[in-house]
Amino acid sequence: MKENKDFSVSCPIPIERYPQILMAHGGGGKLMHQLIEGMFVPTFGNAMLNVRHDAATMNLQGGRFAFTTDSYVVQPLFFPGGDIGSLAVNGTVNDLAMAGSRPLYLSAGFILEEGLLMETLWRVVQSMQQAAQKAKVQIITGDTKVVERGKGDGIFINTAGIGRVEHTQPCLAGAEIAPQRVQPGDVLLLNGDIGRHGMAIMAVREGLAFENTIESDSAPLASLVLELLAEGITIHCMRDLTRGGLASALNEIAEAAGITITMDESRIPVREDVQGACEILGLDPLYVANEGRFIAFVPEAEGERALAILRSDPLGAEACIIGRVEAKQSALVTMRNRIGTRRIIDMLSGEQLPRIC
Amino acid sequence: MKENKDFSVSCPIPIERYPQILMAHGGGGKLMHQLIEGMFVPTFGNAMLNVRHDAATMNLQGGRFAFTTDSYVVQPLFFPGGDIGSLAVNGTVNDLAMAGSRPLYLSAGFILEEGLLMETLWRVVQSMQQAAQKAKVQIITGDTKVVERGKGDGIFINTAGIGRVEHTQPCLAGAEIAPQRVQPGDVLLLNGDIGRHGMAIMAVREGLAFENTIESDSAPLASLVLELLAEGITIHCMRDLTRGGLASALNEIAEAAGITITMDESRIPVREDVQGACEILGLDPLYVANEGRFIAFVPEAEGERALAILRSDPLGAEACIIGRVEAKQSALVTMRNRIGTRRIIDMLSGEQLPRIC
Repeated sequence: MKENKDFSVSCPIPIERYPQILMAHGGGGKLMHQLIEGMFVPTFGNAMLNVRHDAATMNLQGGRFAFTTDSYVVQPLFFPGGDIGSLAVNGTVNDLAMAGSRPLYLSAGFILEEGLLMETLWRVVQSMQQAAQKAKVQIITGDTKVVERGKGDGIFINTAGIGRVEHTQPCLAGAEIAPQRVQPGDVLLLNGDIGRHGMAIMAVREGLAFENTIESDSAPLASLVLELLAEGITIHCMRDLTRGGLASALNEIAEAAGITITMDESRIPVREDVQGACEILGLDPLYVANEGRFIAFVPEAEGERALAILRSDPLGAEACIIGRVEAKQSALVTMRNRIGTRRIIDMLSGEQLPRIC
Repeated sequence: MKENKDFSVSCPIPIERYPQILMAHGGGGKLMHQLIEGMFVPTFGNAMLNVRHDAATMNLQGGRFAFTTDSYVVQPLFFPGGDIGSLAVNGTVNDLAMAGSRPLYLSAGFILEEGLLMETLWRVVQSMQQAAQKAKVQIITGDTKVVERGKGDGIFINTAGIGRVEHTQPCLAGAEIAPQRVQPGDVLLLNGDIGRHGMAIMAVREGLAFENTIESDSAPLASLVLELLAEGITIHCMRDLTRGGLASALNEIAEAAGITITMDESRIPVREDVQGACEILGLDPLYVANEGRFIAFVPEAEGERALAILRSDPLGAEACIIGRVEAKQSALVTMRNRIGTRRIIDMLSGEQLPRIC
């Protein structure tokens, strides 16, 4: 897999002696100490982590901050376009970005299964650090637990994150970027094609072979969002399109804001190979998870300008206005298809893609 | 078990319809929505959580903040004196307290195993909220993942926390409460008897029966620490005595500070039933986990005053000065026993008590 090429640094834990994670690596004794001092601290190395205390401390100027958490249980751990480590960084960075904040600090909590290959952990940890550097965040505190073989599944990672809300748009004085701010007349922007992360993982799991490998869209979205804010775009709400995909994100917002959202099917970009994989597996790309896609609700008057800003960034090159918010009726998401018929896009009731993130 | 009595509020999710956690409860669709809206939001209810956004936002006055994380994988989920929910709150609150900060906000990340009883989750969630109220923190953001049966173990919980460092002791200007601050001449304070949490859990697991049930010492330590700081006690370092117990905490600090710590065995309080249980299982209470015990290094001149402050609080009623820091030699922890002989207290190399927190 492509990721292998980047992992040229050899593992600092002597793999011939400790080829696998033992229960003692979570026991608070010498082996856990070796894991922290040998692998985590030098890899994530920063002054705050180096203090080696129960909690990291940092100076924050007064203001508004965002705080979020996500656990990552994706299977397989490595997939085209990413792995659980980069996903755990990007996912939390994106949640911070969705609150309009600049991601600053992450925590990392590992739940390892006894018998996990040390080499696998090493690859994941390096990938986390590379992703953190790319997203300009520091991993400043962490924790490791080990559970018996058969009581976990390789690696679970939790990351929590802190970001600083820097924008001071007059229209947002005292108000949040939040679902409750969405208003009739807002246009709905999407930064690119949907369904790639979910289908990259399902293609590996189901052994589907395509001409080109579908790669996850996993990416940190903060710089894109901060560009919009820096240019003075009024963002009423944003959401990244993870579990449950575009359809679920829109339904959550429609319900929280009590509004009707109408989309235009022909404007929603879906790559041909993703569409093909969805058809083979009987899935609807509207419900498939993404890890580098988000929607933003902005006033109609600012829509075209916001679109141009998004398109000027590689992560938003295929951005589109895909819909709008109608006069307040009931909480509803509808889609107009290519022949003009409207259908209701409901929230998923069952489970479509387990362990996707 | 005693905890049952407190759970008088009936579960807001219709248990007859959803007696167990399904994969779909983590899928981003209707069932996950129901879990969040029905159980988590009303139970942890606060204005920040109510915004229902990807990240919670909060106003922080400028200053120094602490940030920490811990995952909790304890088995059994319920034990005398606590459960995984209260432990997940107290443990993270205590890590924030150890940095000398006032705990403010927590995140909660759940990794649930398919088939988990809904009733069990409900008990844990209520216990978390009760513990949060007691510790005066708010759970303001969260995440839920579900893994297939046999890929987890009931419930794993990650909590991350943010605390405000409020103390402005002149001697600490620009310096942290951190291992590197410990100095020769410091005395070592302990707030009570050791080994109870670990032995409470081991007694349940091993089916040991004693006249009285050993109860975990799990408790939030922040108010105790904040009292010391408010009274102007100079705290060079603190650490809570979780995994690896007193011995491991002291070894970590001795190594980080490059100092020798000497303890007096006769001054370390261990309850008789805990000592008995340790002997039956061949364990040393010095290495057994606690969840409501901490050590503090303070200058000798302030030792007695600090002791008096600790003893005035129920959580420190049995506090003692158990040792001191010698002139800098090598990084070493030693203990003088009742007949005057000194022995080296090493860091644990193997695994003593798995899944204790």
